[in-house]
Amino acid sequence: MPIADIREITLNRSEALQQQLYEAFMQRIQDGRWPAGTRLPSSRQLALELGISRNTVLAVCEQLKAEATLESRTGKGVFVAADVRALPERPDAGHTLRASAPMPQPVTPSRQVAGRMPGFDNSLPFTPGLPDLKAFPLKIWNRLVHQQESRTRLLGYDHPQGLVRLREQVVEYLISARGVRCRPEQVIVTAGAQQALSLIAEVFLRDGDEVLIEDPGYRGAQRALGARAGLLPVPLRHQVIDVSCLPSRTEAQLLYCTPTHQYPMGGILSYGDRIRLLEWAGSTATWIIEDDYDSEFYFNGRPIPALQGLMPEAPVLYLGSFSKTLFPSLRLGYLVVPDSLVPAFVAAKHRISGESPLQTQAAVAEFLASGQFNRHVRRMREVYREKWQRFEHLLLERLPETWNIVAESAGMHVVVTGPVRDRDAVAHLQAAGLGSAPLSEHFLSEPSSQGLVLGFASASDSDSRRCVELLAGMPANVSPPDTAR
Amino acid sequence: MPIADIREITLNRSEALQQQLYEAFMQRIQDGRWPAGTRLPSSRQLALELGISRNTVLAVCEQLKAEATLESRTGKGVFVAADVRALPERPDAGHTLRASAPMPQPVTPSRQVAGRMPGFDNSLPFTPGLPDLKAFPLKIWNRLVHQQESRTRLLGYDHPQGLVRLREQVVEYLISARGVRCRPEQVIVTAGAQQALSLIAEVFLRDGDEVLIEDPGYRGAQRALGARAGLLPVPLRHQVIDVSCLPSRTEAQLLYCTPTHQYPMGGILSYGDRIRLLEWAGSTATWIIEDDYDSEFYFNGRPIPALQGLMPEAPVLYLGSFSKTLFPSLRLGYLVVPDSLVPAFVAAKHRISGESPLQTQAAVAEFLASGQFNRHVRRMREVYREKWQRFEHLLLERLPETWNIVAESAGMHVVVTGPVRDRDAVAHLQAAGLGSAPLSEHFLSEPSSQGLVLGFASASDSDSRRCVELLAGMPANVSPPDTAR
Repeated sequence: MPIADIREITLNRSEALQQQLYEAFMQRIQDGRWPAGTRLPSSRQLALELGISRNTVLAVCEQLKAEATLESRTGKGVFVAADVRALPERPDAGHTLRASAPMPQPVTPSRQVAGRMPGFDNSLPFTPGLPDLKAFPLKIWNRLVHQQESRTRLLGYDHPQGLVRLREQVVEYLISARGVRCRPEQVIVTAGAQQALSLIAEVFLRDGDEVLIEDPGYRGAQRALGARAGLLPVPLRHQVIDVSCLPSRTEAQLLYCTPTHQYPMGGILSYGDRIRLLEWAGSTATWIIEDDYDSEFYFNGRPIPALQGLMPEAPVLYLGSFSKTLFPSLRLGYLVVPDSLVPAFVAAKHRISGESPLQTQAAVAEFLASGQFNRHVRRMREVYREKWQRFEHLLLERLPETWNIVAESAGMHVVVTGPVRDRDAVAHLQAAGLGSAPLSEHFLSEPSSQGLVLGFASASDSDSRRCVELLAGMPANVSPPDTAR
Repeated sequence: MPIADIREITLNRSEALQQQLYEAFMQRIQDGRWPAGTRLPSSRQLALELGISRNTVLAVCEQLKAEATLESRTGKGVFVAADVRALPERPDAGHTLRASAPMPQPVTPSRQVAGRMPGFDNSLPFTPGLPDLKAFPLKIWNRLVHQQESRTRLLGYDHPQGLVRLREQVVEYLISARGVRCRPEQVIVTAGAQQALSLIAEVFLRDGDEVLIEDPGYRGAQRALGARAGLLPVPLRHQVIDVSCLPSRTEAQLLYCTPTHQYPMGGILSYGDRIRLLEWAGSTATWIIEDDYDSEFYFNGRPIPALQGLMPEAPVLYLGSFSKTLFPSLRLGYLVVPDSLVPAFVAAKHRISGESPLQTQAAVAEFLASGQFNRHVRRMREVYREKWQRFEHLLLERLPETWNIVAESAGMHVVVTGPVRDRDAVAHLQAAGLGSAPLSEHFLSEPSSQGLVLGFASASDSDSRRCVELLAGMPANVSPPDTAR
């Protein structure tokens, strides 16, 4: 190797010389200027030429030897290792081809839903599912968080199933408030309802399986369950799943529904139909996924007890979330399953994400234990009830007869149908800084109606007025239900 | 209905009467004591018999009507709804049968691993992967967390890909510290390395696919990738993946490896083999999963640059985690993928868990931006280096020649092999309150050696002394490698 090569190396004295030298050597070896077998000048000579200490040179050579990039041949000196080669050409484009092949393909409607991303700003007023964050008792919450943050034990690892203390508190709440029959051993803590649903998919579904699901329904469930399985839509009747439409025999092992507060239509499954549903599950050996969405914000008297608790050992996988009762970014929810399924669910949780954040689990457990959770939910029930009444009043007052309000039992949102293409209306509101969702996109089958899902929980009175004015001002545009899904 | 039925209802005046009455009625309707069509006494009569206000009775009846459990027939009174039925029998055992059918079956070794749970107390000294939590700058960290906690914006929803601010900081770190070539658009924030791996499985794998994986290797990767795919073990040579053993043609689309710090054996893949690996990936159109495990705690000079950065558009899915550099319960990691794959990964994240906790993301971003992260990592590198040197010294000094130390470059753990069944040794340490893992359980193929993975990072000097004494005191028990896997 001519010394000229070495003289080309310029080092910046204000930075770490060793690192610079390492990179200079690496670069020349990588781009082939110093091919395999090239002999390096002695460390003394290198130090001299580069005007740096010999130790620096030796350190770099040692590291390159450790990496088998350089090799010393005793008595002969230091060489670029015999097996070193220059950088290969960029691998062929086969990658992108093969990579795209196994990606989710639109074989069921759900696949398309799976691929669709929410708008980046999903914090706008009227965004469905967004709570009234200003009403959250942040000071109290933070105090509880601070009590956890110095506990070193909460920095390490724990069990994927979730902190025992949190599972105990969740059980107390579910028994008293939701009539769920469970013990802490049956609870699996999850990253919100979304992870609970993907855990169910992970445990039960294999490619090509089928799942029964209420239609229209929650898009998060369509995504989580539809990624692997085909989705068999079950229509609604009076805004709840139409139990009379369930097949008497089915290959499907799972039925997804929101019996206490159908999403998005807001209907409540009657006691008689709940029993029918359980009987059907028994006769077809199907598991019911009970998503107890929004049940906390039922406005007429106390919420209806969960399906899961109606009978001992009901064939129900029960799930709930703290995203609405506390706040969404917490990413904490829970799943209640029969004892026989616990090991499979814990193994799946262990596999797909490991434990949930410990400090958060501990803080939520104390929020529940201290009674703050119940106090907050009771208070929010009033806040949302009043918001809903004022908003409904506005809707009735300002919108022409061509508009209708459904989902009247809704706790955090209402659905309004009107003489406009719902995607247009959503875009119209979005442009004015208001969030909402097109009803038509909640359908797996042909949308039977066009409407808007309006999350009033996150809206102020002035937001509500603006929203209603914007809708009232829209030119009627009675096109057939959007089929471009 | 005889009034006697009503008189049986006892109400506790110290609790909510309406709720008690609702439950009393529900119970009798559910267990069939009040069959469909039963006529209820008048609200006046009920109030009289129960000695409570008529309004309470009316409220309960209204709710039961809303649920279609009771119905009023005008002029005739209130009846148990015609379609109400008593509770069905418990559904047949078909459930457990059908439920167990689709659960993970031991078709590949990985399936067994997938089902195996870690011991509940995985916070014992020497637990592999557990950092020295006492050395974490908790005060500084908490101050950064407190700066985030009043930001209402961080309570709501954001993008599943991760906060832009965090992705920008991760990119700065990866470019400067790891030589990774990336932009924030290519980064997906995950719940630790485990979720990064299951996202890769979610995007690439369909039931029955195959994945190449270094053997022995990281059990978390075996779990995440092996749940759906068959695992094809690639043996090691000199404690790193043996590139010469890679098949020249393969159906597998993924190869998992830890090139910068093989887990658990601790070897470093040479520059020449890195190039060979990339060339192989190019020629077989295979994606390399580069798990940059523990690279931060490389003790000999600066860590070796990541495989991903060795060439433009390398066919690499790069993943890392903050579990070791910050703390495990944070549950935060990152994945860097080529632009072409970003949409599929973001959709998968959206599907399986939604966004990562926002406050945590924001706090980590500031920890990085403030320079605290680099300071902490530099400091821990010294802490671990010294712990390792002291521990290695103890091992060499106290253990008989029949024991050997491998994984000498290990940043947080070492592997020692000895004349004992590793499961016995692990149990022996566990009984003394020390964690460790049996090397044999890291093998997919027949374990070629028995050894212990000892996470010295979490061990104090006295823990280390106890550990070494316990091992030295074990009776040699040279049984053939454990095959009961």
